Amino acid sequence: MRRVTVHDMDDLALGAAVLGTGGGGDPHIGKLTAAEAMRRHGDVTLIDVGDLADDDLIVPAAMMGAPTVMVEKLPRGDEIVRAVESLQEYLGQPIRAVTPIEAGGLNSTTPFIVASHLGLPLLDADGMGRAFPELQMVTMTLHGIAATPMAIGDEKGNTAILNTVDNAWAERIARTMTIQMGGVAMIALYAMNGAQARRALVPGTVSLAIRLGGAIRGARARKADPIAAVLDVTGGQRLFKGKIVDVSRRTERGFARGEATIQGLDADDGHALVIQFQNENLIALKDGQVVATVPDLITVLDAETGEPVTTETLRYGFRVVVIGMPCAEAWRGPAALALVGPRVFGYDVDYSPLPTNGRATAE
Amino acid sequence: MRRVTVHDMDDLALGAAVLGTGGGGDPHIGKLTAAEAMRRHGDVTLIDVGDLADDDLIVPAAMMGAPTVMVEKLPRGDEIVRAVESLQEYLGQPIRAVTPIEAGGLNSTTPFIVASHLGLPLLDADGMGRAFPELQMVTMTLHGIAATPMAIGDEKGNTAILNTVDNAWAERIARTMTIQMGGVAMIALYAMNGAQARRALVPGTVSLAIRLGGAIRGARARKADPIAAVLDVTGGQRLFKGKIVDVSRRTERGFARGEATIQGLDADDGHALVIQFQNENLIALKDGQVVATVPDLITVLDAETGEPVTTETLRYGFRVVVIGMPCAEAWRGPAALALVGPRVFGYDVDYSPLPTNGRATAE
Repeated sequence: MRRVTVHDMDDLALGAAVLGTGGGGDPHIGKLTAAEAMRRHGDVTLIDVGDLADDDLIVPAAMMGAPTVMVEKLPRGDEIVRAVESLQEYLGQPIRAVTPIEAGGLNSTTPFIVASHLGLPLLDADGMGRAFPELQMVTMTLHGIAATPMAIGDEKGNTAILNTVDNAWAERIARTMTIQMGGVAMIALYAMNGAQARRALVPGTVSLAIRLGGAIRGARARKADPIAAVLDVTGGQRLFKGKIVDVSRRTERGFARGEATIQGLDADDGHALVIQFQNENLIALKDGQVVATVPDLITVLDAETGEPVTTETLRYGFRVVVIGMPCAEAWRGPAALALVGPRVFGYDVDYSPLPTNGRATAE
Repeated sequence: MRRVTVHDMDDLALGAAVLGTGGGGDPHIGKLTAAEAMRRHGDVTLIDVGDLADDDLIVPAAMMGAPTVMVEKLPRGDEIVRAVESLQEYLGQPIRAVTPIEAGGLNSTTPFIVASHLGLPLLDADGMGRAFPELQMVTMTLHGIAATPMAIGDEKGNTAILNTVDNAWAERIARTMTIQMGGVAMIALYAMNGAQARRALVPGTVSLAIRLGGAIRGARARKADPIAAVLDVTGGQRLFKGKIVDVSRRTERGFARGEATIQGLDADDGHALVIQFQNENLIALKDGQVVATVPDLITVLDAETGEPVTTETLRYGFRVVVIGMPCAEAWRGPAALALVGPRVFGYDVDYSPLPTNGRATAE
C-alpha cells in the first residue's frame, strides 16, 4: 500500500506508454487529466491484489476508441467517473477499488481520475500487462470473467449498460457504439470480486509503470542512456535502430491501423524494419523476417530521449530504437495465444517468445 | 375494452400493413408470430387510453431494423418479451399495458406477443398512426417524452439499457447496435404514464387496423372492390394505377432505401408514378410532380386483392393501385413537420396535406 500523488503522474504516464506498445492512449493527455483530477480530489492509495478480501468488488475503468481520435477529443474526466458509478449502481454493491484494464499512457492514468474523484483505492494491476486493441483481449477472459454488465458513456451524456452473451460480443457492440459516440467512449466493465482479481489480473503493473517512468527520467537527468534503463526494468531487448521513412495510417472500423517502415542506422545500416499496428504494435519484421509479435511487447522509443512513440505520433524522420519486451507469463499458454496471438490478428506465423532474461515470466 | 383473439390477427396484420405505408414489417411474419404466442399464452384485452389511470406505466414494444432483414430472420418471440421485462425491471415499476410504437404489419402485432405472454392488456393506440423509419419520429417526441431508458436486445441474448441525451441520439445509437446485432433488434422504449399516453399517443389505431383488415376481407368475400373498402375506412384517395416497371433497393446504414417506378394503366395510361422510400414510402411523384409526401400515408395495394405491398416485396410486373391517406392530425403542425415532414428526409418541398374527406384530422 502506497500513496500516489500528482507528482507521480509524469512517471506513470511515461512508463505506461512504454508498456502500451504504441497504444493505450496518449500519455500527455493521460497525465494532464489525471493530474487535474488529483489536484482537485486528492491523492490515491495504491493497493495490492493481496490486500483484497474475496468478495471485494473490483471495477476496471478505461477509455475506448481509436487513439487518433482520443488525441483530438480531450476527455473532461467526469464521464469516466459517471460510467463507473452507473455500473456500481447497476450492480447494487459498493466498489472496493478501481483498476486499469490495460497498461498505456492514457489507460493507466484514467483510473486515477475515478479513484481520486470517488475516494477509492486503486489496485496495482491490470488486465493485460500491456495494451491490446480489443476488449476481450484481457486475462479476465482466460479466467471466464464476463466483460458485462458493462457501462459505456460519452462526453455528451449518452450512456448504456450492456449485457452480452460473451466478451467478443461486448467488444463488437461497444466498438460500434464508440464509433457512433464520436470515436471515444468511457467504459467500466469486467466487474470482479477480490478472489477473481487475485487469480486473473496481471499484478504490479501500475507500480512497474511508475518505476519505469522514473528510470527513464533518472537516466535523462544523469545523461545516461534512457533506453538501457527501459531494458533494465522490463527485461527487454533492442530490436532495431533507425529512421522512420514511411508511415501509413487509417482509422478503420474504430481502430487506428497501419504500418511504419524504419530504415536502419548504425549497426542496422542497410536493413529495414516494418512494424504493423492496430492501435498497438502487433508485429515487427526485419528485412521481411519476423523478429517479434504479439503478445510480446513491441515499443518504439525516441533514440535520444527514450520517449515512447505511440502509433498516432509516428512521423517521418523520427530517429527511433525499437525494443521488444517479454509479455506477462499469463499470455504464453495455448488458450492465451488463441485470444491474443499473432494468428488472431491475421498473421500466419507462430508466436516465438522473446527471451525473458531471467524475469519470472516462465509458463 | 374488448377481447382480441388469434382469429383477429389476420385482419390486424392486413389492416396494419395498409397503415404501415410500405414499412412496419412483414404482415405475414407478424401474424404468424403473434398468433403462435396467443395460442400458447391466451387472448389479449384491448383497452383505450381513456381506461388509463394517470400514473399507469405504459411501455411500447417493437422490432427495429431493415424490413429486408426482418423477412430473413423470423423472430422467436420471446426476445421481445425479454426486452420489455428488462425495461420493467430497470424502471422498478409494474407495467400496466403495452402498446405498439407504430402501425405496421409486424409492429402492430409484435406487442400482442408481449401482452399475451405477460398477461397484460394492450393499449389501442400507437406513436405514429402509421409507420416511420426512425425512432424519434413519434408523437411522444412532440410531447417531450424521452425514448430512454430503452431496452434493446437480439435473438442471441445480447441486451442493453440505453440512456441518451435526446430521442435522436437514441435512434442513432440503437440503429448502429441493431446493425451490429445482425440487422434486427427488439426494443422497449418511450415508457410513459397514463396521463402522458392520453396526451401523446394516436388513439384507436389497433382497432382501426383490425377494422380495416376486416373491411378488405369482407370486400373480397363479397367480390366487391377491396380498395374502395380501404378508402372508405381510411378516408384516403386513389393516387395512381399501374404496373411496377422498375424497383431499386439497397440496405444502407440499417435502412431499406430505394424507389419504385410504376407505369400507368387505365385512366393513368401514358403517365408514370415514382415512389421513393426509406423503409416506408416517403414521397410519390406523378410525371415528376409531387402528389403526396410524408407525413401523409402512401400505400401500394395489389390492384386485384387490395393486399398491401411492402417496400421489400415490390416487384417488377405487379399491378398495383397507389393510395394516399391523410395522416393523424398530430402530424400536421409545424413542430410535427420539423420532425417528420418531407424536408427531414431530404426533399426540398413543402408538405401539402391530402384532403381529410370529412375525417376528424383538422389541425
